[in-house]
Amino acid sequence: MFQNVTIVGVGLISGSFALALKDKGLAKNVIGVSRTASSAQKAIDLGIIDEAMPLEEAVAKADLIYVAIPVDATIPVMTTIMDLLKPGQIVADAGSTKQALCDALRDHPNRKQFVATHPMWGTEYSGPEAAVRNAFVGRSCVICEKEVSDPDAVEAMEKIYTDLGMRLVYMGSHDHDRHVAYVSHISHITSFALANTVLEKEKEENAIFELAGGGFESTVRLAKSTPSMWVPIFQQNKENVLDVLNEHISQLRKIKSCLEKDNYEYLTELIENANSIRRIIK
Amino acid sequence: MFQNVTIVGVGLISGSFALALKDKGLAKNVIGVSRTASSAQKAIDLGIIDEAMPLEEAVAKADLIYVAIPVDATIPVMTTIMDLLKPGQIVADAGSTKQALCDALRDHPNRKQFVATHPMWGTEYSGPEAAVRNAFVGRSCVICEKEVSDPDAVEAMEKIYTDLGMRLVYMGSHDHDRHVAYVSHISHITSFALANTVLEKEKEENAIFELAGGGFESTVRLAKSTPSMWVPIFQQNKENVLDVLNEHISQLRKIKSCLEKDNYEYLTELIENANSIRRIIK
Repeated sequence: MFQNVTIVGVGLISGSFALALKDKGLAKNVIGVSRTASSAQKAIDLGIIDEAMPLEEAVAKADLIYVAIPVDATIPVMTTIMDLLKPGQIVADAGSTKQALCDALRDHPNRKQFVATHPMWGTEYSGPEAAVRNAFVGRSCVICEKEVSDPDAVEAMEKIYTDLGMRLVYMGSHDHDRHVAYVSHISHITSFALANTVLEKEKEENAIFELAGGGFESTVRLAKSTPSMWVPIFQQNKENVLDVLNEHISQLRKIKSCLEKDNYEYLTELIENANSIRRIIK
Repeated sequence: MFQNVTIVGVGLISGSFALALKDKGLAKNVIGVSRTASSAQKAIDLGIIDEAMPLEEAVAKADLIYVAIPVDATIPVMTTIMDLLKPGQIVADAGSTKQALCDALRDHPNRKQFVATHPMWGTEYSGPEAAVRNAFVGRSCVICEKEVSDPDAVEAMEKIYTDLGMRLVYMGSHDHDRHVAYVSHISHITSFALANTVLEKEKEENAIFELAGGGFESTVRLAKSTPSMWVPIFQQNKENVLDVLNEHISQLRKIKSCLEKDNYEYLTELIENANSIRRIIK
């Protein structure tokens, strides 16, 4: 058990992580660092953190520091934290991109104390009130470049995530960013575009409201995700996201062409091919 | 209560409808009509239907005939049923497109006995084993062109759907097809295209399998839907679907252009606009 765990950011991921640590008896005291006093207070009121304090003080007190903030803020904040570290302290992040951060910290003298992680769980909501209990159960957690982290630090993070019910997956930060472009980032882009499509063209919003069923909701729910989280992700993972997005537009154009040319045999083939996603997802 | 209800097709919608009728005490005996003996037997084994018989015989015995088969088959099958009707019998369909069917039946001498309905519920699965209990609760059901149906027939269908927990929405068949292109058909197209994108580009399927989280699953699950159901829907609703699909591709190209030009201010605006879908869906 950790005596003091500091979470930097008191939102969806860090909040759910803090709740899980407490539920599993892995942390005695959780300290929160937030840009705003109101979020910190909300996190205290919700029982997510025990106390709030400024970054420098919170880092000094912590055995483990867990950073879960938008990925553009992560690099400077993490650099500040790494500069403050004393021997024995562990720091980990939960960011959706890994290459830019790992590259930025590669030559830091305290690099070994940092473990790059990405628990593959999230919802379209944000802020401390979005934190939920038992959030990570049954999901995968990626650990990147474990070979440049201290084995004890890696082991500590592995134990936490495993205790939280996660499966561990190991890969390089470059591979991570390429894979998440497919399994996460493109889903958010299609969802944002789908929401804008409907909002642009369907002027009778009441009809959407009345008719929208499970299919619409499941494809569009990610469009509720905030730009403050997602724009930096798309920016940091631009090359991979553009690669997937180009392919996706090309796949949509194939379907469009089938309809325009009344080529329903080929449309059937395209859908049969899509059906084979059953092999991959339950 | 209906003495004998005939369901034509023993699949996801008709099967769930039959289970709900029995659960609510709305039907004493349910007769199934299926193209294949194995599906009919499965429907009997699952307690979805009491007996199976050929279409003509099943129509002759029924007080209510409920047709839920792919929309290309619906028009000829419905015409056959309408020709067989005796006074007092009611027939309804559950198809995802309404205009082609309503147009085809417009001048049929028994048109008044037909009620055009579309319960807005479904899953990506098909066949009798896909039928589930309490399927329609809390969803909307569209009734089209009620003014050309017999008021008693409309009232009987309204009572059934209301008893099943559905909200009734009324509109013309043209409006229906335009709206469902937005709230249902485009979601399926993006999902098929997304599945093909990932299958085309991500050669390490194991990575998808290990990493795919809730976001990917929710945007891609509709891609498991069968072409036998969806190709005829896209074909019958081609003009509306193309209209929405063109807009969707244009929205994706806007996002692509933001990334290519590093225009993250405009990308933020696009995502903020998409966020306003929160007004419409919970």
